[in-house]
Amino acid sequence: MKILLVYSHPNPGSFNHAIKETIVSELTACGHDVKVRDLYAIGFDPVLKSTDFLLAQQGKVADDVKLEQDFIVWSDMVVFVHPVWWFSLPAILKGYIDRVFNYGFAYTIDEKGVRGLLNGKKVLILSTTGGDEKTYTDTGMFKSLSQTIDGGIFTFCGFEVTEHKFFTSVPYVSGDERKKMLEQVTAIARALAVN
Amino acid sequence: MKILLVYSHPNPGSFNHAIKETIVSELTACGHDVKVRDLYAIGFDPVLKSTDFLLAQQGKVADDVKLEQDFIVWSDMVVFVHPVWWFSLPAILKGYIDRVFNYGFAYTIDEKGVRGLLNGKKVLILSTTGGDEKTYTDTGMFKSLSQTIDGGIFTFCGFEVTEHKFFTSVPYVSGDERKKMLEQVTAIARALAVN
Repeated sequence: MKILLVYSHPNPGSFNHAIKETIVSELTACGHDVKVRDLYAIGFDPVLKSTDFLLAQQGKVADDVKLEQDFIVWSDMVVFVHPVWWFSLPAILKGYIDRVFNYGFAYTIDEKGVRGLLNGKKVLILSTTGGDEKTYTDTGMFKSLSQTIDGGIFTFCGFEVTEHKFFTSVPYVSGDERKKMLEQVTAIARALAVN
Repeated sequence: MKILLVYSHPNPGSFNHAIKETIVSELTACGHDVKVRDLYAIGFDPVLKSTDFLLAQQGKVADDVKLEQDFIVWSDMVVFVHPVWWFSLPAILKGYIDRVFNYGFAYTIDEKGVRGLLNGKKVLILSTTGGDEKTYTDTGMFKSLSQTIDGGIFTFCGFEVTEHKFFTSVPYVSGDERKKMLEQVTAIARALAVN
């Protein structure tokens, strides 16, 4: 598969970075063609501006948006690796969605209503949280995140959501537990190769 | 009351702009002391960076973050006016939360667990959506937004959430309906004066 990895964490010492390195390495070893967009490294501008709206009215997009859209067009699957900050995406990734997943590219509105345009593509989301799994489960937060992110963004645009995997309590777990989490990342990557 | 208004829309011709103008005018007429932070106008940088983490380790924050924190400290109530983009906040506002509501200012973690530090302050959120009210209600999306935004951000930090009012189907309603929505904004502002 042609796999686009969109990565959003500022710290090369972070567990998110380890997840990214692990999945890229494993997917490549499995023979997939992997391209990485590291939003911090490329300095992606996440602020949707009036100029974006003006371009949209002319059926155009900004050059930096077009570049990212071309990567999505190229891909069979998009993998997002990011921390959950405030029960949502980091701003740089939220703005990637705001700007790149625009009307006419990711979805359209016609006589039948809103319709996703990215059908046939898959998405895999690997997220880390500071909060613990029990709290997220008991409060229904996993369900709310699934509705707002998986459903509200990806299914909305026509993607098939392969999995949204959460690695919880990341700042508080032991080195051994983190190692087990990275083994889970490897297993997820290998399962993709089989499907 | 001392009221801080945090406004996040790029277009001065938007309905969000009309909401902002209406509430500022009414709150001022009611005798409140109102300060406005227009995140687009001030060019707020929403990207939480490695430098922010490094400063945090020294118990410091960036100058632009400190400026916004001082406005919050000054206020009795914060009013947010913003569109819902992708069932979340626009990136510029998401990044305001990521950077300004940081550990040690908005919340802390001690032996009792996570604890908000902005107790005694109120928050009012005025949001616009493209989607219609029935869909948001029937799908449980209002509930998910309440959990991720009202609970996950504001209650988490100790704010009392006065109201999260959604103005729905904004791009599709008539001028008369928009006028009625602005009358609701006025009524909300007047009710604050009485409380």
